[in-house]
Amino acid sequence: MPASAPIAASAARTQALGTPEIGPLGIICGGGVAPAAVADVVVKSGRPVMLFPFRGFASAADVERFPHEWIALGQFGRFKRLARRHGCRDFIWIGGLTRPRIGQLRFDLGTMLMLPDIIRAFRGGDNHMLTTLGAFFERHGFRILAVADVAPEMLAPEGVMTARAPTPEDRADIEKGLDLIATISRFDVGQGAIVARNHVLAIEGIEGTDGMLRHAAALRDAGRIRSGERTGVLVKMPKRGQDLRFDLPAVGPDTVAGVAAAGFGGIAVAAGRTIVVDIARVVADADRAGLFVIGVKAREA
Amino acid sequence: MPASAPIAASAARTQALGTPEIGPLGIICGGGVAPAAVADVVVKSGRPVMLFPFRGFASAADVERFPHEWIALGQFGRFKRLARRHGCRDFIWIGGLTRPRIGQLRFDLGTMLMLPDIIRAFRGGDNHMLTTLGAFFERHGFRILAVADVAPEMLAPEGVMTARAPTPEDRADIEKGLDLIATISRFDVGQGAIVARNHVLAIEGIEGTDGMLRHAAALRDAGRIRSGERTGVLVKMPKRGQDLRFDLPAVGPDTVAGVAAAGFGGIAVAAGRTIVVDIARVVADADRAGLFVIGVKAREA
Repeated sequence: MPASAPIAASAARTQALGTPEIGPLGIICGGGVAPAAVADVVVKSGRPVMLFPFRGFASAADVERFPHEWIALGQFGRFKRLARRHGCRDFIWIGGLTRPRIGQLRFDLGTMLMLPDIIRAFRGGDNHMLTTLGAFFERHGFRILAVADVAPEMLAPEGVMTARAPTPEDRADIEKGLDLIATISRFDVGQGAIVARNHVLAIEGIEGTDGMLRHAAALRDAGRIRSGERTGVLVKMPKRGQDLRFDLPAVGPDTVAGVAAAGFGGIAVAAGRTIVVDIARVVADADRAGLFVIGVKAREA
Repeated sequence: MPASAPIAASAARTQALGTPEIGPLGIICGGGVAPAAVADVVVKSGRPVMLFPFRGFASAADVERFPHEWIALGQFGRFKRLARRHGCRDFIWIGGLTRPRIGQLRFDLGTMLMLPDIIRAFRGGDNHMLTTLGAFFERHGFRILAVADVAPEMLAPEGVMTARAPTPEDRADIEKGLDLIATISRFDVGQGAIVARNHVLAIEGIEGTDGMLRHAAALRDAGRIRSGERTGVLVKMPKRGQDLRFDLPAVGPDTVAGVAAAGFGGIAVAAGRTIVVDIARVVADADRAGLFVIGVKAREA
């Protein structure tokens, strides 16, 4: 790190991270509402941010409230120039990228040089892809931080957050969901599942949590889900062995609405390893809908 | 077995089964098109059938072409009387039952006596439920046969059935799908998955194969599936340890249409352990759509 690098404001935070901060925190934004929510919290904590939303993945309405530079997959050269121009060295990466078709990418020169790595990155699941892409950043002197480093208050707390608590039957469903997600981790697929009265109803694929819940609501309307109203738990947990700097599972008010619409009883997330967007509203909405929300101790803490 | 039991016609078949046949073959019909397709094959083989379609699950249009008696879950007493009246002792069980809500069932006396068993049956996944329900039949002197016993020609053959064959990349996707389904077997959930270029896109839950394919088609329309057209494989295999007399995976012309609509490249099924409804049409439709269909050696043959 060059000695002339500008030192950021917060000395306390700097010490916590064990290394001085440099410039604004870069936030690389994939899809979903989490990137802007995390940006809000970081700004409130006193650190300036610079968002790098991925074109085609991030939501313009959300990210354009902040200083930002749109980037595209395959334009690492451009990204590097922009990051240096804005003095960003530390980054967090929030939100997933639907796996693009490799033929759809337009590569700039900076990316061409890394093509073999990129091709390797595309040959696994999401986790593999993100970790490999993350390694690009680090090799170029950027540092990828975790949400826990910059906005720990956005991570799910442990314990029941709502008026309603899970019953022993709900807890058994939660255990089954956690076990299932851990078991399929090596396939690098779902971070979510729905379990109702010991019966696995759905495992999250590329449709994402909201897609899975919409699908479940349609199945219930069609009479295909016959377990009682307010039974069944949405379980969200990172894959075992997942690099927690990338693509943490996230829940928010939309998740609560989706669980309520599909007639399930509650939401269980891995405490400290799941982003909760707008926790106050999540809890209020869940209470109003009669759902529980619980942070459960992760199995590989 | 009473010595006075009427002996069925086919001596050769009788010998193959090691025990004399009694009366028509009872076909207990859950959902899907497989029950009627199996009935057609059995009738063609010269054995009379008596269908027992489950009300709310079986398709009336399909089963009413055959002698039949509608039954309902929870009416085992009625079923037993009807089966005896029609002289059925041997049964096959084709097609799944969406797990009903236990409060929705109306129990007759014959079922009430077995309520503890039924409640146990409802506490696991589909396989557990079907096996436990099947045990009821056997305890009452009925015999549950496998498709392999009565209509082996309906089981998927081994090898490539279509003009197009899977590429080495497709074969890797097939292996991954087989591995995944075997791995999640203990959760008693999916018999199907979609894998595209080493990436698991979907795992079948209660939506069933057709539901999963419709969902995938919508995701592709929405740009959420970005792997190339004609890449990606639908893999169907029974759960590891599954009682093969119940709820074998099934594919048919609808499956081919679903795979084509979702833009995937082909279908791989466990040879000898998957029902193929109307194989001639499956192959013709797949050829027309440029898809492959392959029967792969099961991992636990």
